[in-house]
Amino acid sequence: MKVLVVGANGQIGKHLVKQIQDHEDLEARALIRKEEQASYFHDLGAETAIVDLEGEVAAIAKATEGVDAVVFTAGSGPNTGADKTLMIDLDGAVKTMEAAEQAGVKRYVMISSYDTTREAIQSAPESFAPYVVAKHYADEWLRGTNLDHTIIHPGRLTNDEGTGQVAVAPQVDRGDVPREDVARVIVETLANDSTIGKEYQVISGDQSVADAVKAQ
Amino acid sequence: MKVLVVGANGQIGKHLVKQIQDHEDLEARALIRKEEQASYFHDLGAETAIVDLEGEVAAIAKATEGVDAVVFTAGSGPNTGADKTLMIDLDGAVKTMEAAEQAGVKRYVMISSYDTTREAIQSAPESFAPYVVAKHYADEWLRGTNLDHTIIHPGRLTNDEGTGQVAVAPQVDRGDVPREDVARVIVETLANDSTIGKEYQVISGDQSVADAVKAQ
Repeated sequence: MKVLVVGANGQIGKHLVKQIQDHEDLEARALIRKEEQASYFHDLGAETAIVDLEGEVAAIAKATEGVDAVVFTAGSGPNTGADKTLMIDLDGAVKTMEAAEQAGVKRYVMISSYDTTREAIQSAPESFAPYVVAKHYADEWLRGTNLDHTIIHPGRLTNDEGTGQVAVAPQVDRGDVPREDVARVIVETLANDSTIGKEYQVISGDQSVADAVKAQ
Repeated sequence: MKVLVVGANGQIGKHLVKQIQDHEDLEARALIRKEEQASYFHDLGAETAIVDLEGEVAAIAKATEGVDAVVFTAGSGPNTGADKTLMIDLDGAVKTMEAAEQAGVKRYVMISSYDTTREAIQSAPESFAPYVVAKHYADEWLRGTNLDHTIIHPGRLTNDEGTGQVAVAPQVDRGDVPREDVARVIVETLANDSTIGKEYQVISGDQSVADAVKAQ
């Protein structure tokens, strides 16, 4: 199974491409924005495609051709403004869904945020609310497509080393989770078609990633 | 017919409430954000309801009860950032649609911008693109509801006195249009159920508003 990783150069993305390349049934195509980001992925033996998510859907669709699944783990990042949140987290995400449809790719895994419900928008601090709005509508858009989708809602992301032990459920308590373990959950999600149509929150816990994902 | 005007204190909104109050078959309820904005509308004999579009849907739904139509002409304005664009032009708009559904109001008229297509997003200047994205998704959301909707796409808005002469069609050339004439097009749209399910651009032209809208 070939997997297009959108946002490959991000912190989850880099873990994810490495883990995909280490997996015997998976291979990655890293979607990146700049040529100078490519060497990390080439060193892992992964393909790369250079595409700007603010660009045309046609270019994203071209980069999507020939893969079996798309993982969206791009983010405008905490240091950009709400303008980039709109352009990347919402519009960029929807464009990758349209690109998947155009390229005939059915499987789509969205890395959302912990809680993107209407209630989460209302209770978010003012500075964070626009991000939740963008992720809310990206998730809603995905639910309305015919793509075979899974939506993963990780807790507070850390750069701690992964433990491989998580708690996964439609609703789990708020908690931390290493980005490395989120990547493991994504890999296991790709490997289990039973996750199609599901969405779940992920934090650190006491179940192996394989067991936790299979139980969804 | 009682009409909830969302964004009544805006530049189109003020014209619109006045014209609705002058119309024998229509009356307005002005949705405003602050008590001190109310006197203008009370002087016109219009009801007011004070609601923050960043607040709960339930509060917006309560303010929507008992009207026959909703007009969305709110905008975060040119002097706010993309955060308010996300919160008002996209999420605020969608919340008024949900509020209309909850209050059992079927008729909904959206004042969009001139061009909210995917192509318009791509060709917009970088500073303007987030606004187009927000309006694009608000329009898309409305199209996906069961509301009896009309989407009006005005050209470049001016504060010139209205002439009552416009050009209205699904696609018209780029051009100016006084806000006062946009308000007239909204009133005529409310008065003509044949406009349900339609969307059209509006600029100044040489047809009376009544004839131009009836021809849609």
